[in-house]
Amino acid sequence: MDLLNAMQTMNACRYFKPDAVADDLLAKILNAARWAATGSNKQPLSFIVVRDAAKRRALHDLYQPIWDTVMQKYASGEFKSGFTPKFLGHVDHFARHLDTVPVHIVVCVQWKDLTALDANLDRTVLTPGSSIYPAVQNLMLAARAEGLGTTLTTLLALAEPQIKTLLEIPADTATAAVIMLGWPEKPFPQSLKRKPLAETAFLDRYGAPLPGASAYV
Amino acid sequence: MDLLNAMQTMNACRYFKPDAVADDLLAKILNAARWAATGSNKQPLSFIVVRDAAKRRALHDLYQPIWDTVMQKYASGEFKSGFTPKFLGHVDHFARHLDTVPVHIVVCVQWKDLTALDANLDRTVLTPGSSIYPAVQNLMLAARAEGLGTTLTTLLALAEPQIKTLLEIPADTATAAVIMLGWPEKPFPQSLKRKPLAETAFLDRYGAPLPGASAYV
Repeated sequence: MDLLNAMQTMNACRYFKPDAVADDLLAKILNAARWAATGSNKQPLSFIVVRDAAKRRALHDLYQPIWDTVMQKYASGEFKSGFTPKFLGHVDHFARHLDTVPVHIVVCVQWKDLTALDANLDRTVLTPGSSIYPAVQNLMLAARAEGLGTTLTTLLALAEPQIKTLLEIPADTATAAVIMLGWPEKPFPQSLKRKPLAETAFLDRYGAPLPGASAYV
Repeated sequence: MDLLNAMQTMNACRYFKPDAVADDLLAKILNAARWAATGSNKQPLSFIVVRDAAKRRALHDLYQPIWDTVMQKYASGEFKSGFTPKFLGHVDHFARHLDTVPVHIVVCVQWKDLTALDANLDRTVLTPGSSIYPAVQNLMLAARAEGLGTTLTTLLALAEPQIKTLLEIPADTATAAVIMLGWPEKPFPQSLKRKPLAETAFLDRYGAPLPGASAYV
């Protein structure tokens, strides 16, 4: 599949068919993650494909109370989002049916291989993710190219200790995300809701217009 | 360009031609970053394209002493890498000629839009990067599809305050990475040096073999 087309139509899939995903296809998609760069080529990532129904149910049971808290904060206005009630309904459906998504992929990281170069700045740490989420994006784009839907969640970080016990993850290994993967029930979108490029791309200093950016709205 | 082919041949480019990159092409590549998902679709990213020679020289002058310290630690064995002296020579060449790379792209983040869900775990923070580096990967893959080389660096996090002054970046905005971009002097590789998939992809629990993974070595 063409690269830009895959990127432009890769939405967060909230409704999945129960149909199985073949082993060969899944291995092909996971293979795409391997090629992403990591700091000093340390390759600190591994991926646990969870197909076992009881374990997917356990992941659902960990996710549901976390999501319920988030949903409540959206509903009360404590979290500002601009999301419509209809959209939040879709996300809520996703949470309530998480265990029926046929494949959960837990992204594992040997985090001691990563250096938090920005640990001493007066802000949250960002840079260790540069050795993680490029591979995750490769995986999700490869899934899109095969017609598979995905959704990334980091909410399960709040249940990391329980997930490590459930999936026998070593003490020195963290979980960076969980990717839900399966055949989408709805068609892929033609495009996604994003800010115009001119609002986010600048030349030589923050805020200065970039030639050509206004073509992308 | 085909998605998997782009992923599999996207190396870190260390040698660039001095040739200019056209405005239209650059805007097209930056546009690819827009499509990546961000938490709650907050779209906290922006990109400063640095073409100005004096500013690229200033970025080089910030980078060089940071790299020199890293290089010294590799040379002394304090940093373990398995890198050959020849390979480190390539990276050193890259550092010394950083200002001659025609385009530097500084990735900016309104970091207060990101929630560090893993802030209370006994490890480094990873998850905020999930709203940053997927877009960075899109950008770099789109560049590869156009025949452009890129290298991502997070080392400049150590000079974030100076970079913010140089590029007039607002106080509430962080720098998450710098992408060096230009026409590569050498051909793209056929493939990249990575662990076999069977070492990093598991089924239902950490370490358990994944069917089909052994096909990818």
